[in-house]
Parts: sequence; structure tokens; C-alpha cells
Amino acid sequence: MSSKYIYLDHAAATPLDPSVLKLMLLFYESNFYNPSAGYIPAIEVRRKIDEARARVAFWLGAKPPEIVFTAGATEANNLAINGIMSKYPKANMLISAIEHESVIAPSQSFNTRNVKVTKDGRIDLEDLKQKLDEKTVLVSVMQANNEIGTIQPIRQVFQIVQTERRRRSGQGLPLYLHTDSAQAANYLDLHTSRLGVDLMSLNGGKIYGPKQTGVLFIKTGVQLSPQIKGGGQERGLRSGTENVAGIIGLAAALDLSQSSRNEEAERLTILRDNFIAELITALPDLQLNGSLKHRLPNNVHITLPGADNERLLMELDGQAILAAAGSACSASSDEPSHVLKAIGSSDEEARGSLRLTLGRSTTEEQLRTVVKVLSSLS
Amino acid sequence: MSSKYIYLDHAAATPLDPSVLKLMLLFYESNFYNPSAGYIPAIEVRRKIDEARARVAFWLGAKPPEIVFTAGATEANNLAINGIMSKYPKANMLISAIEHESVIAPSQSFNTRNVKVTKDGRIDLEDLKQKLDEKTVLVSVMQANNEIGTIQPIRQVFQIVQTERRRRSGQGLPLYLHTDSAQAANYLDLHTSRLGVDLMSLNGGKIYGPKQTGVLFIKTGVQLSPQIKGGGQERGLRSGTENVAGIIGLAAALDLSQSSRNEEAERLTILRDNFIAELITALPDLQLNGSLKHRLPNNVHITLPGADNERLLMELDGQAILAAAGSACSASSDEPSHVLKAIGSSDEEARGSLRLTLGRSTTEEQLRTVVKVLSSLS
Repeated sequence: MSSKYIYLDHAAATPLDPSVLKLMLLFYESNFYNPSAGYIPAIEVRRKIDEARARVAFWLGAKPPEIVFTAGATEANNLAINGIMSKYPKANMLISAIEHESVIAPSQSFNTRNVKVTKDGRIDLEDLKQKLDEKTVLVSVMQANNEIGTIQPIRQVFQIVQTERRRRSGQGLPLYLHTDSAQAANYLDLHTSRLGVDLMSLNGGKIYGPKQTGVLFIKTGVQLSPQIKGGGQERGLRSGTENVAGIIGLAAALDLSQSSRNEEAERLTILRDNFIAELITALPDLQLNGSLKHRLPNNVHITLPGADNERLLMELDGQAILAAAGSACSASSDEPSHVLKAIGSSDEEARGSLRLTLGRSTTEEQLRTVVKVLSSLS
Repeated sequence: MSSKYIYLDHAAATPLDPSVLKLMLLFYESNFYNPSAGYIPAIEVRRKIDEARARVAFWLGAKPPEIVFTAGATEANNLAINGIMSKYPKANMLISAIEHESVIAPSQSFNTRNVKVTKDGRIDLEDLKQKLDEKTVLVSVMQANNEIGTIQPIRQVFQIVQTERRRRSGQGLPLYLHTDSAQAANYLDLHTSRLGVDLMSLNGGKIYGPKQTGVLFIKTGVQLSPQIKGGGQERGLRSGTENVAGIIGLAAALDLSQSSRNEEAERLTILRDNFIAELITALPDLQLNGSLKHRLPNNVHITLPGADNERLLMELDGQAILAAAGSACSASSDEPSHVLKAIGSSDEEARGSLRLTLGRSTTEEQLRTVVKVLSSLS
């Protein structure tokens, strides 16, 4: 990426890693064959997709047939929710109050209950227990939040789900746990059986891979209705000629992110914590939103009381600092963020909030510049 | 593409045009920003998407807001059918008997009637008139068939649709006409109002653009339910962070295909007709399937009576000639093609049939080689 900018919006989009692009180019330039065709060069393309699938499965502690490639996490979330819930018209589902729009929007077609979060953005496990009943078929809780970076206790959610499953003792409705790991995949363990999830969504465009590539992990035995039907690709769960270059790129990007995640998490945690400390020194009124302890290493989400984030972002933009007010995923909505509302922020606090998300290109020097600029503006 | 092969499977996949790839690279390498973000470099990315949308709209004789970018024609067909039909639970839809699997499969969730085709693969307009009734909401007829290359009389289908609309005189259910133009876009006029269609699907991967890119044209006033919900991109009709490089690539590929379509159609028609003539001379038993007159310039679909196409394709593959038995879109199905069944071929005839689809790299010399090899094998 160009060094002209200080890019602090890695939660919205990550640059494509050059080594990932290099691998993708092969499938644009020469190996363009339809992987469903029968001749040898097409079979070689199919084998590369199989290798990519096995690689993704490895990081998720999954079997290759449990990996379905989609066009992004939004589609994966829609497939998980519509695919399960459309089979059980009288059932209900539970989601946390701070899920991404691509979980909230499809959930609204079904009987959905919102589970509260605490002031620091962690799911309220007592509220979850209370709202979970014998008609609940799906629980969807994101692994880490895209706005305030809070990491959710997925394993504890799993234990509550397990208790309910035991109560049903194999009778009645099934109960599945889904997690949207789009924001988690650069920094957290994605091993699905350690987490205890039945369904997991991933997004290539947030892990230095290509946009509009994604994964839905579907544990063996979980039945869901396909949403895009046709030629029967992806075991009939998601039809359409495969995005060969995209799949190769997504797998390579996940490989890079997961194999370096501990070092990168450590590096960014130090950068982040120094950045927060310097910001608080420079701007004593500043509030940090979300959890300090259970937080993505690259997330800084602050409220500057009385500030107008639209104005601030424009001024930062003028100084080549690229950041966000909330989530960039919903196209130019003027509504205050549902995430900030859920953790109890007032509209005025929401209006004064900024999201600064670090990434591979972020340096200490860049962050020092941001502190200087922000304190000069406030 | 490598010149090592004689590639005659352009209906299954086309190589990415190098000039298209060059344009795409910009959005992989530097302009990776999320187009929903508010800073200037992201706004520039959004502007490039708008330009691409306007360019696609131009070729379709459409307004830019009528263009929705999808991940391929399969998704576009699913969005058209599910998006319309889910709004009218008591209505019915009509499709031709030789539609692509990505039309047939979603249509099976609804009350769908198959309209017969003639022996040469053209829609039977009398059968269409007879099956169309006051409960019909959607008619879906492909512009050109992916297996036998037959071009459908969309304008005549439109006139029948118009007659029924007039009969309803603005009362009762709406009636929409959808066409899948995935195979047509390299060679035929896509002007939607000249054709008279309300919905049109396109596929980047069949027009020398990137795979898993597509378009659904939705005429102003046509109401449909989104299938993938979330951040509200594509006017709420198809959420998810945009495939920026893919959209740029699709628009550039359509531009190239449509601006050269007359010359390329003429060149390929001559090649195709000579090829067919030489094949018939070399193999007098050979049958040509589909219409000779209403046929895509790049399609040759033949039956060699008594032949086993699986064996033939393997032998062709061994001689570096890449071709197909039927459609490559359905993953390794052993069923005889529904298209060949619909035009009255026996199972044995279907087993002896080959699809050879020409494209930009096809030369007279290549086709002469194919004639030689095929006659030596038969």
C-alpha cells in the first residue's frame, strides 16, 4: 500500500498481501479453466481448490468437506442464518445485541431475541441462559466485534449451549452455535472444536486477502438449506463457477494471518497500549470504549466528549490519516451505531467516537503523529 | 492463455483478458479501500465503482441504479427468481425447458411450469401462450443456450408478455420477463428495452472477465426481496463489501466484448461454419444439434452416433484439445443433459455428443487439427 497515508481502518478493509496476489495471478493469467470441466488442466485447477480447502480446514481444525467457499462473510452469515432457520419455522434464534449488520438483517426474517451485552461489550451470559429455551435452534455470537473490538467468550457460550442440548437429550429441536469470525481471524485461534462452534464465518477482505471471498464452516451433521442453487458446486450448498483466484487468495491469506497471529498480536498489543496511554495523556477527557482486557490487539475505539466525529474525520483525512466513525460496512447511514447504543453510550457520545484500527503497516511513529494531530484538533 | 492447448470450451470459462487484469490490479495493489468509508481515497474507489456501473448500464440501455453487481450469474438468477417469487406465494412462473441449472434449481421452490422447445431448441411460443395465465408473475427465458447455443426470440416472448399485461390492464399481479444473458453477452445486443426484458443476468467469467462477478439488471419499478442482507450495499438489494477489482474487471470485460461483438461474431461465424462443413465431410454420420440459423457464433454441438463422449474427450485431452460433453456447470453429474432430452435426443445420442465452443484465441488452423483428430478417432 502507499505510504502516503496513515491507514487506521484495517477493520473496514485490509490491503491485499503481495504474496497472496502473486499466487492469485496464476489463476487469472493461465489456469483459468472451469474447475468442473473434465480435462487435465481443469482437474489441476480443481486440485488447487482442494488444497486451498484443506488449508482452510487445517486452521479451523475441520475436515475439508466442512468448508464452503462463499463471496464474503456477509453471504456466509446469511447462509448460516437463512440456511438453518428456514428449516424450522416455529423456532427462535438468539444473537448478541452487537452483531454485524449481516447477522442482524437476515435474523429479522425470523423469531430473533437479542442478548444484552455488558458495559464493556461482552455478552451477558445470564441473559443468554434466560433467553435460551426449548425452541431455540441457533445462537449467533461474533468472535470479536468490528466496532469496539471486544472478544466474546465463545467457549462459555458453547457451555451454555451444551447444557441446553443435554437437557433436550437428543429429543426435540437441534441447537447450533454460529460465530462470525471476520474480525477475529488475524489474531485469534479459529479452532472450531476448541471454540465449540458448529458454524463459523470468515472474510478474505479483512485478512489481507481478496474482497468478496469468504468461508462458512459447517460442522458435519449440521443440515442447512442452500441459498444459491444451480450447478451444485460446494457440495450443493453454494452453486456457481468457483472464484478460483479468490479461493486460492483467501486460503493463502488465512495461512499468513494464522501462522503469524501470535507475533502480530503481541506487536500490535504493545503499539495499541502505548497509543492509548499517549492519547489519554494528551486528551485527558478521552474515554476508551469496549473492554481493555478482552480486546482485539488492533482496535482502538474512543469517545472525545463533545467532539463531532464527522468533522474530526475530515480533518484527519486532510492530514492523510484514514480512520472511521463506526463501522464502514453500512453504506453511509446516519444512525448512531447500534453497538455503542448497546453498551450504553448516549447519542452525543456516539457522535464523538472514533474507531482507529491498526494493521501490518502500522508503526509507532505513525501513531505518534496521530496523537499529535488529534490533540491539536481537540 | 497458453498456446499449448486447443481450447474449445469457451462456454465453460474464458481466459481473463490481460487488459482487464491490468485495470483490476490497481484495486488489489493500492486502491484497496472499503468503498463505504468516508475518506478521500475510499471515495475515489466508490467513484470507480460508479463509473463501472454506468458503463454496464450503457451497454444494457439502462440507468446506473438498475445495475446490481453480484457474485456471478448463478447468484443473479437466484436473486431474480427468489427475489420476485417469494413475494407472491400463490403465483406461478414459466421457464423454458432448456434453462441453465441456476434458473431451474431456484425455480423448483415455486410453482413453475416448463415451456417446451422445438427440435432445434427454440422456445415454443404457442406453448408459452397456453401456459401463461393470470397467476403468472415471472417468465424466464435465456437469451442463448449454454449447451447447444440456440438464440431465443426474446422480443417475441416480450410481445406475448405484453399481451398478457394488457389483458390484466394494470389490475392483478405484475408480470416480469427475465433473461439469462450469460452466454449471449459476447455476441448479441444486450439492450434491455430493445429486448423488452425487466431483468437480465450477466456473468463476468464468460466474457473474458473475472469469475464470480455478475450483474442483475432490475428495471426501475420492479420490486424484489434481497437475498443477501447486511450493510445495505447495492441499494440494499445485495449486501457485502463490494468486490472492487471484480466490478472494475467485469465492466471492462463487458466493454471489450460489446464493442467488438459484431466483428468477433462475424469472424467466428465464418470459422464455425467452415468447421461444421469440414466435420460433416470427414464424418458423414455426424448430426448438428440446435438451430443452424439462430445460433451463437461460437457454438458447435454435435452428435457422433454410436460414440462414447467420455472416451472421445479423454482422447482429445490426450492430444491437447479441450472440449466438453455438455455443460461443465453441473459438477460431474452422470445424468444425460436436460437440454438434449428437451430437444428430443435419445440417451444414446446424448452419450455421443460433444460441445466445442470457440473464442478469441480460436484459429482456422486449430479447427483443422480438431477435424483431423476427430476423424482419426471415430
